[in-house]
Amino acid sequence: MNDTLRTKLGVPFPLFAFSHCRDVIVAVSKAGGFGVLGAAGFSPDELETELTWIDQHIDGHPYGVDLLFPENMALAGEDPSRVTDLARGIPQQHRQFVADLLKTHGVDPGGEADAVRVSRPPSLLRAQGVALLDVAFRHPIKLIVNALGLPPKEMFEGARAKGVLVGALAGAREHALRHVEAGVDVIVAQGGEAGGHCGEVSTMVLIPEVVRAVRAVSDVPVLAAGGIMTGRQMAAAMVLGASGAWTGSVWLATTESETSEIFRDKMVKARSRDTVRSKGRTGKYSRQLKSAWTDAWEGPDSPGALPMPLQSMISEPALQKATAAAERGVAGGRELVTYFVGQGVGLVENVRSARAVVQDFREEFAEALGDLDTLAS
Amino acid sequence: MNDTLRTKLGVPFPLFAFSHCRDVIVAVSKAGGFGVLGAAGFSPDELETELTWIDQHIDGHPYGVDLLFPENMALAGEDPSRVTDLARGIPQQHRQFVADLLKTHGVDPGGEADAVRVSRPPSLLRAQGVALLDVAFRHPIKLIVNALGLPPKEMFEGARAKGVLVGALAGAREHALRHVEAGVDVIVAQGGEAGGHCGEVSTMVLIPEVVRAVRAVSDVPVLAAGGIMTGRQMAAAMVLGASGAWTGSVWLATTESETSEIFRDKMVKARSRDTVRSKGRTGKYSRQLKSAWTDAWEGPDSPGALPMPLQSMISEPALQKATAAAERGVAGGRELVTYFVGQGVGLVENVRSARAVVQDFREEFAEALGDLDTLAS
Repeated sequence: MNDTLRTKLGVPFPLFAFSHCRDVIVAVSKAGGFGVLGAAGFSPDELETELTWIDQHIDGHPYGVDLLFPENMALAGEDPSRVTDLARGIPQQHRQFVADLLKTHGVDPGGEADAVRVSRPPSLLRAQGVALLDVAFRHPIKLIVNALGLPPKEMFEGARAKGVLVGALAGAREHALRHVEAGVDVIVAQGGEAGGHCGEVSTMVLIPEVVRAVRAVSDVPVLAAGGIMTGRQMAAAMVLGASGAWTGSVWLATTESETSEIFRDKMVKARSRDTVRSKGRTGKYSRQLKSAWTDAWEGPDSPGALPMPLQSMISEPALQKATAAAERGVAGGRELVTYFVGQGVGLVENVRSARAVVQDFREEFAEALGDLDTLAS
Repeated sequence: MNDTLRTKLGVPFPLFAFSHCRDVIVAVSKAGGFGVLGAAGFSPDELETELTWIDQHIDGHPYGVDLLFPENMALAGEDPSRVTDLARGIPQQHRQFVADLLKTHGVDPGGEADAVRVSRPPSLLRAQGVALLDVAFRHPIKLIVNALGLPPKEMFEGARAKGVLVGALAGAREHALRHVEAGVDVIVAQGGEAGGHCGEVSTMVLIPEVVRAVRAVSDVPVLAAGGIMTGRQMAAAMVLGASGAWTGSVWLATTESETSEIFRDKMVKARSRDTVRSKGRTGKYSRQLKSAWTDAWEGPDSPGALPMPLQSMISEPALQKATAAAERGVAGGRELVTYFVGQGVGLVENVRSARAVVQDFREEFAEALGDLDTLAS
C-alpha cells in the first residue's frame, strides 16, 4: 500500500467515506477508515459547528473536508452580496416549469419569493468557498479535497501552511495528470457510475488508466471511486492499482445519514439501472436517482438546465418542498424525491449503521483476499 | 474457481476471447485461454470453412462459438428469401442521409443497388441463425453462446444433444436470472463500458450484483465482461466474484485481428472517452469508436436509426466503402471509420500478437495476485 496514505494520513484501512453527515465521519474514522465531510452546503458558521462537534467526538482519529470550487462556472467571480441579482438571471420559463412540475405532483410551489434559494448564498461562489476553507483550516483536518476541477491556490496555500494534504477528484486521465502537475497529493479517480458529479469512463477502465499515467510521472496515490459499496469491490479496486477506495453512496443508506427516510427507502428498492446522469440538479452532469423530477428535466418539454450555480437555486428549494410533502404522505411528492447516488444503489439491501458498514467492508475485504489465495494456488 | 469452467470446458486460465478472427481463437486457446468465434457475420459455408480451419490448427484445445439470436427484433420470423422485400422497408430519407454523409467525406456512395446489403442475408434472421447453429454443432465446440437475450430453443436442444455448454450475455441482474431460469450454463455479465451491444450498468457494479443474485439460486458460473483489457483487471473481476473474464476489444488491436490497419491505428490513439453508445450501427444500442459516422447518427440532423436488422443493411456497406476509401488515402473516409469497441480502448498502447496478449494477461494476473499478498499482510 502506498506509504503516503498510511504515514501522512494515519489511516489503517484505506476506506474513505464522503458524507455530509458528521456522525458518519466520526463512525468511519473511529472504525479505522477515513471520513471526509462534504462541506459545500454549509455556511461558515454551520461548518464551524460541525467541525467542532467532530473534533469533540472523533477521539483524535484522522478526517478530512471536501469543498467545491468548480473551475468552469458562470459567475465564478461574483460577490455573494449580489445573490439577489443572480436570482434575476433565472428565466421565468424555468421558474414556471418548476412550479408546474410541483403542482402536477400535488406539491404546493409556494410563492415566488421562496422559489429561488437566495437566503443562503450558494457556496459555489468563490468568496463563500474561501470562507469555508478558512474555517476548515482552523481544525485538525488531515486532508482537504476539491470535488470538481483543479484546487484553487487558496486551497494549496492553506494546506501547505498547515501540513494538510490536498486531494482532487478526476474523471479522466488528462485531468488526473493536470492535478499531479499542479501539486495535488492524492488523486480520487471517479468512474462514471458514481453518484454526484462524474465523468463518462467507468471505474474498471479509469482506475488502471489513471494509475498507469500517474505512476509514470509521480508517486501520487490514486483512490478509486465509483460504484464501490462493499469490501470486495474495494479489494478489486486495489487490485486495479488504487491505494484505497473513496465511497459516497453507501453512506446515504445508513441510519446516521442526512437523507430522508423516504429516500433511503427508495435506495433499498432501487436497481442499479435506476440512476441517470443529468444536468437537472446543479447545471453540470451529476448522477442521481431517477424520479419524476429527473424524468421531467430529461424529457421533451424540459427548458434545459441552467448553468451552475443557477440551476441549484431553483432545484434545491423545489426538492425540499417535494420531500416535505412526501413526508406528509403526498404520493406525488414521493415520486419527485431524488438525490445524488451512483449505480451502486442496486447493491443496497438495507439501511445499516455507519459502524456496521465499516465492519462489513473490513470482513468482505479480508474474505476477498482469502479468495485470491485460493486463486493463486 | 468454479468447477464448471475447468472441468466441463477444460480451460486452465479462464480468459475468454471473443473474436471474429480464427487466428485469434486458435492463439488464445493454445495459450491456455478459451477462444470464442463470433459467427453471426458468416454465411453457413463460410462458418464451415472457419471452423474446419480452427479444428486443424488448434491441437485439440477447447473453443466455442457465439451467435446472435436477438429476442426483440423486427422481422424475427422473416424468410431469408424475402431479403429484397426487407430492403424496401428502408426509407429513402435514410438512404439519402447515408449517401450524403459519404459524399461530404469524399467517399463515393456508389449506385442505389449497392447501398443496401442484400447479397448476404443478415444472419439475424432466425432461419439463417439456425443454419449457422447446425454448422457449429458439427464441430467439436465446447461452448455455444447467444450474444443478445435468451438463447432460442434450437440452441439448447443442439447443445444438450452434443454435451456442449450454453452461454448467454446479460447486461442486467434481471436478465441474468432469466437466463439461469431457462437453463443457461454460463452467464456473461457485461458492463456498459463494453464494446458492442451492452447495457447501462458498469462492470464494477454489475458483477457483484449478478454474482450475488445468481449464487442465491444456482451454481452457474458468471464471467465478467466490459472494459477488461489486462490481467490485472481480470484478477479484479475475479475478486468481484466472477469465475473468469470475457474479453473482446483487446483482440481487435492484435496483428491477427479482422480490423483494418486504420482502425487499429485509431485504437492506439483513442482515449477511453472516445467511444459512444449509439443505435447508428445496428439499430440497437452498441458501443463504438466515435467517428464522423457516429457523430452524424447522434447529431441533430440524424433521421434516427432504423430497427434491427434494417440499420445494419445500410451501415455496413457504407462503412465498408469508407474504410476502402481511407485505405486509398481519402482523409474523409478515415474520419468515418469506426467499429465496435469498449472504453478499454484507452488502455491500448500498441498492436501485439494474440499470443503476446495472452502472455501479458497471465503475467499481470500473477503480479496482481502477488500484490494482494502484500495487501493481506
